Amino acid sequence: MAKKPQIVILGAGYGGMIAATKLQKKLGSGEAHVTLVSKHKYHYQTTWLHEPAAGTMHHDDARIEIDKVLNSNRANFVQDTVTSINKDEKKVILKEGGELAYDYLIIGVGATAETFGVEGVFEHAYHKWTIDGVRELKDHIEFQFSKYRNETVHKDEDLTFVVAGAGFTGIEFIGELSERVPKLCEHYDVPREKVKMYVIEAAPSALPGFDPELVEYAMNLLEHRGVEFKINTPIAEVKENLVVLKDGEEIPASTIIWATGVRGNKLIEESGFEAMRGRVKVDADLRAPGEEDVFIIGDCALIINEETERPFPPTAQIAMQQGAVAAENVMALIRGGTTSNLKPEILGTLASLGGKEAMGTVNVSFLKGRKLYGRSAYFMKHMSDNRYLMKLGGPLLVLSKGRNPF
Amino acid sequence: MAKKPQIVILGAGYGGMIAATKLQKKLGSGEAHVTLVSKHKYHYQTTWLHEPAAGTMHHDDARIEIDKVLNSNRANFVQDTVTSINKDEKKVILKEGGELAYDYLIIGVGATAETFGVEGVFEHAYHKWTIDGVRELKDHIEFQFSKYRNETVHKDEDLTFVVAGAGFTGIEFIGELSERVPKLCEHYDVPREKVKMYVIEAAPSALPGFDPELVEYAMNLLEHRGVEFKINTPIAEVKENLVVLKDGEEIPASTIIWATGVRGNKLIEESGFEAMRGRVKVDADLRAPGEEDVFIIGDCALIINEETERPFPPTAQIAMQQGAVAAENVMALIRGGTTSNLKPEILGTLASLGGKEAMGTVNVSFLKGRKLYGRSAYFMKHMSDNRYLMKLGGPLLVLSKGRNPF
Repeated sequence: MAKKPQIVILGAGYGGMIAATKLQKKLGSGEAHVTLVSKHKYHYQTTWLHEPAAGTMHHDDARIEIDKVLNSNRANFVQDTVTSINKDEKKVILKEGGELAYDYLIIGVGATAETFGVEGVFEHAYHKWTIDGVRELKDHIEFQFSKYRNETVHKDEDLTFVVAGAGFTGIEFIGELSERVPKLCEHYDVPREKVKMYVIEAAPSALPGFDPELVEYAMNLLEHRGVEFKINTPIAEVKENLVVLKDGEEIPASTIIWATGVRGNKLIEESGFEAMRGRVKVDADLRAPGEEDVFIIGDCALIINEETERPFPPTAQIAMQQGAVAAENVMALIRGGTTSNLKPEILGTLASLGGKEAMGTVNVSFLKGRKLYGRSAYFMKHMSDNRYLMKLGGPLLVLSKGRNPF
Repeated sequence: MAKKPQIVILGAGYGGMIAATKLQKKLGSGEAHVTLVSKHKYHYQTTWLHEPAAGTMHHDDARIEIDKVLNSNRANFVQDTVTSINKDEKKVILKEGGELAYDYLIIGVGATAETFGVEGVFEHAYHKWTIDGVRELKDHIEFQFSKYRNETVHKDEDLTFVVAGAGFTGIEFIGELSERVPKLCEHYDVPREKVKMYVIEAAPSALPGFDPELVEYAMNLLEHRGVEFKINTPIAEVKENLVVLKDGEEIPASTIIWATGVRGNKLIEESGFEAMRGRVKVDADLRAPGEEDVFIIGDCALIINEETERPFPPTAQIAMQQGAVAAENVMALIRGGTTSNLKPEILGTLASLGGKEAMGTVNVSFLKGRKLYGRSAYFMKHMSDNRYLMKLGGPLLVLSKGRNPF
């Protein structure tokens, strides 16, 4: 009897979770061993993290215990951190627990902040969009309010919040924060006008890739809530409690949030994959170039949008599609078949703006290409969140962790 | 027609509030003008502050808007800070709003931390038992947990909590914190054994003045929850994130709470009253020695317990009795009568220990001198809290701000 093939999945993000659940569902009993490796014993919804970051959602609502979704009879879970991948010996080295040999590897180890060479980001800015990272950011924000109020001499910088980056993450975060600020002011007996919020963007427009009308809608709404935008304004350096702009202006701020985008996990380059900003330009079937048995998905995979000839931005919906295709392709190889190619499909791009506000476009059936604003965008965004949970864990997961679209 | 006498009350603590509400109830219409001056537009229950400090109660539940209790037709309220009292010209100087002339003055401006000469307390320890102070402490505590968890290299001092002083305040605070720590650990994904709690006391016993059996009960209970006591251990100095003991030991701790007792507001000495540690040894009718028309109550008044020949500790129950007597005496003087003396009555001394735990003695009717533990002490403590609210604002106030004794 031949040894059962070992499938190892690294990372429990959107891609890894979809791959793992698909494999446990579709593999015949005894057809292969599946092992999922993750640093944490939970999966978290990165695309929701702007909410616990600003304190408008409990962080537990943005995470799911892996053993709630993974069936331990059909897949193993190893809680550990991957320190390196040895492609030649086909094994993964773990921090705590030795090594894992694989026949097929699916890598979905996520991203870290892209600083574009700006000094001081890792030291002085909140940059980790993880459960641990946003929980600290939320507590830090609240602490600034209570500290400000309790100081004999109030320091304006304690109530100044600077978001670097007016892309998806930055806008969604400031949407939540600006929505919450009036409540924070009430809770902490602080006058509303003492709070300053800035969003600083190096590019010539906020929300690149969005329709200009949608960008205007979002900016007007946020400005109405007191957010000040500085567009076309690169940052020179981040210091302790200080943002230095390239034009020489300095903004003292006790809370600096870095949201200028991500690059792939450094594990990728450290393990000898050729990568650009930590992302591997994968083959159409998601294998790393020249590798027979290694698939790369999510934030570490670079795929080109043929229509625009530019890379797809790393999003949850692409990661999920990649997770599914990688799982199918591993099964095909085990069964002696051939792999299929990913056909990326953008079902919509919706940004939430705090409260019951959102905006974006949807590309499904009768709404194809339609711009949505306000409540209808909010509705569609939450419906799509629920669709993901349905895919991951069925209706009970939607019930326990789903979102009310109304 | 003679000018109506001006009665000015400084401070909206227990004493000032009881004096103000008694005067507004008992003075005939047009008999006198009553003005209450306070820094904040709310009264707060100092004896409850260990709960919002540890995060087991919302800070709003420990404060009452003054206009909910004071009838603006019968008494004025001035929100301002007193900068000095000019006894000779019989006026009070305010920070924002000029001066207030008085015919009768009741001073109840509270206390500040007593450091006993230890350096660094004001700079590096939480020492303000006020709404603003405990709100910051609570947020600081939570921030330490999230910071610890999110750090790449965890720092043990971030989860070390040092309380200086094993008196009433220190014990009640650590009671709440030790009760909450398991919940904090769960919320922040932190192992329980990482949290260290110390109570450091210079005196040879915790809870001086309590029966040794009660002290043992409290210490056992708190030790069981993980609190470590260092009794007979004076503190030499407080530095940033460090407590230095006289015996040379150093305890690194990101959270240091100062609870070694209080001294009277410095306003007292600055205004030329003869005082010991900010407290004036008042006459039996609560007038400042040599003053015809100035009454001092609460933490700024020193009165001697004739049974023990030692000063009564400054407590809420004494402050309330003083507020009532000062109000009665001012009315007597206005009406051409003579003043009466305070007959201090200790109705009980109950310390809460977190959760549904408390201990202490009660001196009323059938329970006279009885030692109480656990639930029954908790019941009596909350009943007495409610009695105060009843006195202050009647049954509706008990309903909105009262405590469930069960």
